[in-house]
Amino acid sequence: MTSTISINDSQRLQLKPLEIPSRLLLGPGPSNTHPEVLQAMNTSPVGHLDPAFLALMDEIQSLLRYVWQTENPLTIAVSGTGSAAMEATIANATEPGDVVLIGVAGYFGNRLVDMAGRYRADVRTITKPWGQVFTLDELRTAVETHRPAILALVHAETSTGARQPLEGVSEICQEFGTLLLVDTVTSLGGVPIFLDAWGVDLAYSCSQKGLGCPPGASPFTMSPRAVEKLQQRRTKVANWYLDMSLLGKYWGSDRTYHHTAPINLYYALREALRLVAEEGLANCWQRHQKNVEYLWQGLEDLGLSMHVEREYRLPTLTTVRIPEGVDGKAVARQLLNEHNIEIGGGLGELAGQVWRVGLMGFNSRKESVDQLLAALRQVLPR
Amino acid sequence: MTSTISINDSQRLQLKPLEIPSRLLLGPGPSNTHPEVLQAMNTSPVGHLDPAFLALMDEIQSLLRYVWQTENPLTIAVSGTGSAAMEATIANATEPGDVVLIGVAGYFGNRLVDMAGRYRADVRTITKPWGQVFTLDELRTAVETHRPAILALVHAETSTGARQPLEGVSEICQEFGTLLLVDTVTSLGGVPIFLDAWGVDLAYSCSQKGLGCPPGASPFTMSPRAVEKLQQRRTKVANWYLDMSLLGKYWGSDRTYHHTAPINLYYALREALRLVAEEGLANCWQRHQKNVEYLWQGLEDLGLSMHVEREYRLPTLTTVRIPEGVDGKAVARQLLNEHNIEIGGGLGELAGQVWRVGLMGFNSRKESVDQLLAALRQVLPR
Repeated sequence: MTSTISINDSQRLQLKPLEIPSRLLLGPGPSNTHPEVLQAMNTSPVGHLDPAFLALMDEIQSLLRYVWQTENPLTIAVSGTGSAAMEATIANATEPGDVVLIGVAGYFGNRLVDMAGRYRADVRTITKPWGQVFTLDELRTAVETHRPAILALVHAETSTGARQPLEGVSEICQEFGTLLLVDTVTSLGGVPIFLDAWGVDLAYSCSQKGLGCPPGASPFTMSPRAVEKLQQRRTKVANWYLDMSLLGKYWGSDRTYHHTAPINLYYALREALRLVAEEGLANCWQRHQKNVEYLWQGLEDLGLSMHVEREYRLPTLTTVRIPEGVDGKAVARQLLNEHNIEIGGGLGELAGQVWRVGLMGFNSRKESVDQLLAALRQVLPR
Repeated sequence: MTSTISINDSQRLQLKPLEIPSRLLLGPGPSNTHPEVLQAMNTSPVGHLDPAFLALMDEIQSLLRYVWQTENPLTIAVSGTGSAAMEATIANATEPGDVVLIGVAGYFGNRLVDMAGRYRADVRTITKPWGQVFTLDELRTAVETHRPAILALVHAETSTGARQPLEGVSEICQEFGTLLLVDTVTSLGGVPIFLDAWGVDLAYSCSQKGLGCPPGASPFTMSPRAVEKLQQRRTKVANWYLDMSLLGKYWGSDRTYHHTAPINLYYALREALRLVAEEGLANCWQRHQKNVEYLWQGLEDLGLSMHVEREYRLPTLTTVRIPEGVDGKAVARQLLNEHNIEIGGGLGELAGQVWRVGLMGFNSRKESVDQLLAALRQVLPR
């Protein structure tokens, strides 16, 4: 305390304790958290090497395998939000010069392109108008042409509301020695996924959508085939924080310290996964499907139409066309300010054209739909 | 729901709601969280573009500037734990081939070496035995020799408990056009820091030590001089999640969506920072110093000695020599299992030689010290 520098108080805000409005979150995420999940998160942290915490990590690993329907040993939660888990798949699977073929039919396909370039991949793309999906024939032709080390597809495009079917894709990949990487950010917990049956090698997700947990700890998995590529790398993973050759030792039996985990978020994630297991995956998926069909019917009754063809619509996220002459931003603002309901606007190619309505995790309930439809009836111009 | 694949229930654990033991966390971190911080975190999340959340981000920025004593506009919280903020400084400040000179006198100096290599820096090191610090003369000679783009020093070496003095270092750096990067993970909130007066260009920290918050949202700042280097890059930042040229637009006036923030951790961080501002930095630093001196006295009364010379000891983290013939791991295990007190073991060169005792944030209290000393009196062999 011998310092002679005096303390500058110019940024010393005098604040009251936190006050945050209570919102119904029906945008693209985060969605509201199950009260029991919040309760679990509100437990005082223990150390990241505490035996009680290590046991909890094991539970998270098992339950993530369950919700993803995989037996991959390397199935963990990354200490960041969904984009960090996305980056983890690219960082660990890609070496400089690897051909990475990315299906781009929305904003998050483009994000994969940006990331893969930063890891010095030789990036190739196939594209579709936003809201459409790739056919098996289109994927076969592209893989034959580019012979990629990795094919990356977005299962649930959060920017468009479209669900990319994945059955049959791994057969094409295996023919050409290609790893299959899949974005399940907006599908995990809400949309049927069978990672192993579909032959997916790398997948990532988030906690704050189908799992109904706060954001910040994000599911990540890689198949033994992908782990083999990781082990045979000639260069270190170009990202220390997300390096699975190090993280695998902390989550695996070695328990070697890597970084301090976001302890309380793991409490929350464990609880959110426990609730999904209690409900059962089949029930959980059916609930999402049933509630979204109720939403679609209600929106159509209001004279609105959906952007995506019915067969490929996500049960978790719906893109609704903004009618001609309606100010989409003003409607969203009014829903937020007058009804405490958040919905999302369009991104990229769909900016100004659609609203994005999420019914995910805890929020996939009839009451959420009723509340939104009632508010829309008041807000939409007649 | 037309899928014919059946659901595999082998990993569907049937668990009870979370039960976690209550520990007094006196290791190297995390430390216990202030109850008001936990309370704030337990608020239902809102969207990451909600006006209420954007206002909260502004508050976090101001308060981080206060605790760091800087006016840097680019002062934010990274969506990950301290190591992610560490990686953010390296990723944003380094271009391939840049000479990065790192002071290594402990585990976290080595971590910087590992990270900088992954970003293809030309890494040079100066070293000191673990527990010692660099003199200004040693730093001057090294900077003159290597003429680095960046000099990286660890202000508070969590593995050794040593405090690296920083007064006068920036004068050397400015002479050679070198940016000064500083690790303040175990100093922020507990040890006097004057980033601007000391001419620091890049710094990072964590939330779960001196700030008494759960881990997962981590302070990061860069000076206008460092931002200039970022803007003049010839290559994209080799890390999408931590790219400040993108993150700066979300935290700045543009509010451009980058990734979903870990909303509830920002609630917690805002509250932890509010409490530091309420107490006042000078009081907070004095509290840490007073309590650690009380700890040192108590440990000496038990016949124990400290690893670091008194002048350079951190008020936040103390390394205690394990006496000859004592099984350090057994003592720590007994403290945890019989007294619910966590202390840390030695890392790297100091493995088996020291215990690490943290008194940080909410845990820097006389009661914590009394509780530890009483337990040690029972556990230590006579």
